[in-house]
Amino acid sequence: MTTWDSLYANRATRMRASEIRELLKLLDKPDVISFAGGIPDPKLFPADEFKKAYTDILGSAEAERALQYGVSEGSLRLRTWIADHMQSLGVICSPENILITSGSQQALDYIGKLFLSPDDTALVQWPTYLGALQAFNAYEARYDRLDPGTNRSAADHRRKASETGGDIKFAYLSPDFANPTGLSLSLEDRRRVLSLAEDLSCAVIEDSPYESMRYDGEPVPPLLALDCEASGGIENSRTFYCGSFSKSISPGLRLGWICAAREVISRLVLIKQASDLNTPVLNQDAMARVAESIYEAHTSRTRTVYKARRDAMLAALERHMPAGTKWTKPEGGLFVWVELPGQIDAAELLSKSVETAKVAFVPGRAFHADGVGANTMRLSFSCADNEKIEKGVSRLGRLIVETVTSKV
Amino acid sequence: MTTWDSLYANRATRMRASEIRELLKLLDKPDVISFAGGIPDPKLFPADEFKKAYTDILGSAEAERALQYGVSEGSLRLRTWIADHMQSLGVICSPENILITSGSQQALDYIGKLFLSPDDTALVQWPTYLGALQAFNAYEARYDRLDPGTNRSAADHRRKASETGGDIKFAYLSPDFANPTGLSLSLEDRRRVLSLAEDLSCAVIEDSPYESMRYDGEPVPPLLALDCEASGGIENSRTFYCGSFSKSISPGLRLGWICAAREVISRLVLIKQASDLNTPVLNQDAMARVAESIYEAHTSRTRTVYKARRDAMLAALERHMPAGTKWTKPEGGLFVWVELPGQIDAAELLSKSVETAKVAFVPGRAFHADGVGANTMRLSFSCADNEKIEKGVSRLGRLIVETVTSKV
Repeated sequence: MTTWDSLYANRATRMRASEIRELLKLLDKPDVISFAGGIPDPKLFPADEFKKAYTDILGSAEAERALQYGVSEGSLRLRTWIADHMQSLGVICSPENILITSGSQQALDYIGKLFLSPDDTALVQWPTYLGALQAFNAYEARYDRLDPGTNRSAADHRRKASETGGDIKFAYLSPDFANPTGLSLSLEDRRRVLSLAEDLSCAVIEDSPYESMRYDGEPVPPLLALDCEASGGIENSRTFYCGSFSKSISPGLRLGWICAAREVISRLVLIKQASDLNTPVLNQDAMARVAESIYEAHTSRTRTVYKARRDAMLAALERHMPAGTKWTKPEGGLFVWVELPGQIDAAELLSKSVETAKVAFVPGRAFHADGVGANTMRLSFSCADNEKIEKGVSRLGRLIVETVTSKV
Repeated sequence: MTTWDSLYANRATRMRASEIRELLKLLDKPDVISFAGGIPDPKLFPADEFKKAYTDILGSAEAERALQYGVSEGSLRLRTWIADHMQSLGVICSPENILITSGSQQALDYIGKLFLSPDDTALVQWPTYLGALQAFNAYEARYDRLDPGTNRSAADHRRKASETGGDIKFAYLSPDFANPTGLSLSLEDRRRVLSLAEDLSCAVIEDSPYESMRYDGEPVPPLLALDCEASGGIENSRTFYCGSFSKSISPGLRLGWICAAREVISRLVLIKQASDLNTPVLNQDAMARVAESIYEAHTSRTRTVYKARRDAMLAALERHMPAGTKWTKPEGGLFVWVELPGQIDAAELLSKSVETAKVAFVPGRAFHADGVGANTMRLSFSCADNEKIEKGVSRLGRLIVETVTSKV
């Protein structure tokens, strides 16, 4: 049986491994300081609370229900908590507006499945979340650059999309402390995206897994809240809010959600039913208990830890990066985005860095839908303590200086 | 925003709610005896063993890993158990031949995603598992009837597929105690399917969630085992075996697997990565512990319970069904398939039955890719005790007699 390639669907040609996940396998060496993974610090997971939750559920009459099949939309108790949480962000909604997904990656997959016919266009930022590109690639999407700052006209976006023969189905963006840049959208830019989407009659996908991780500055309302306000309520809104417990509590249970108009939630429920029936009820029940009892206290505690690491990384970058290097100053999240001087290729730098400086990071090219951005890199401060951050950034700075010098 | 329909992908027109899952919501009334759900009896779930497993993991140093992101292919410990299990079924394989999925429904979704371009053909039985049709519909599949007994030629299947403009990508079947018929494929028929697939150069999808539920008769080797034997080993095999813990232990953790050649597993890992990153490590670790410690004893105990229920149902059908009614006599699984006399429409019968006889079942039409089979129904004996089975079948028999009489 050597003819697999001829049997695969057309879409299979677009499926590629995440460079990052492949990288992470190579970089997991004890002597390398890693700023590569975008993962939360496992030392901060509330293991005791989860232990209590699983023990309580499995030791009670609830066990039978928790170990059985469940409804595709998700457990009411967790959807109720999430609806309350969305209200606290300014989105007036009910549990019927919530679909539980197996992490927000699944939300992106389902949204691609619902909207994208081959060659349809998704508007995305340059750079954008790599996992979103992977999810949409599987439905043979095309991309056009969404740049809320530049005010590009709807007509111009339409022209671009018609070149590839498809329609513009949605604008995808991560407005709070985005992966990979760490940057957030201003209120004005959020309004501009919504207005562009209205002109284009397309949906807006608001991916907000880092929402709970603001370390300073004032919160800006979610696009969904602004959309509800402008359109008269969630049932008239064009925005899909994708939330997640992965960064706020733990990624291990694979629990996220989509909050949107009931009409589209009901379509997404059909997709869920056909793709994996339901997310485990046991995990949903455990997360509901943990969120109900410790969400505020836990996210407050982890914010303190991550804020200190962000501060340490920004300070170290100031101290050790040579002139010509630029980086973002995120108000939250897990990432700092670096632009290297002198056309240094970050992928080449990485192979040197792992050998000599013993520091790992993620080269930025993969986050760009068209493969530009060779001189960019993503640094994550989530899993390193202050000492490692100082040591790692200092070594990396030295390597960059050497590389610039050798190129002159 | 009232223009959602114009934004949806072409495939969305093929997405419909499972009649069964919609039915189950209506039928959940205390005074109705239900033979409808194809779900295992929750009283048989090993809740204590799961409690111990979750407590042990979350109370130990393993908690950090169990609550973190994991690799897309699945935890090595669980894949190792599964590879051993597959060996016990006659399939020589290693953990690299296994992908962990979120239930075998996800396996079907991924296989559809990997193979099906719009209008490609899947060969399926008439009737077949409804969830498979739902999974493949989302990729705009066409269907042609697979009937291992009739020896239809490859050329004839090819002619049919070319009418709809696509290629035949795979033959899908459930060879052991199939949902909905309860029937199994003979060794000869299994060989015939493999030979047809070879003639067609297509893949074979072997869906086997009920494998552990044989109550009598001799086990027949999985198609994958026969394929490995004939082709020289799993790396040359064209068969994808989809297994599941849903019926053998519990469906609540949503844990299944695909066992196949490494080359195709690596493609499916990419699909997993883009669609939900990974199945929860915590659940995989808990299932590995439970399977390692109680799989044999537990499945042996549940077989005894379900065998008694099957026997009770077959005896009650003998006693209470009028002449002209036919039903299958399954050697395992959860279902008996009934053909009604006198062109009775099972969907019409169901609405009467829920009102008057207070018995629920699933009308058979939805299991047929072309909507035939109006006079068929699926009865599940999984969740009713002997008394309920006797009472329910007796009432149902009376209703069928009345219906036949009124039509004469």
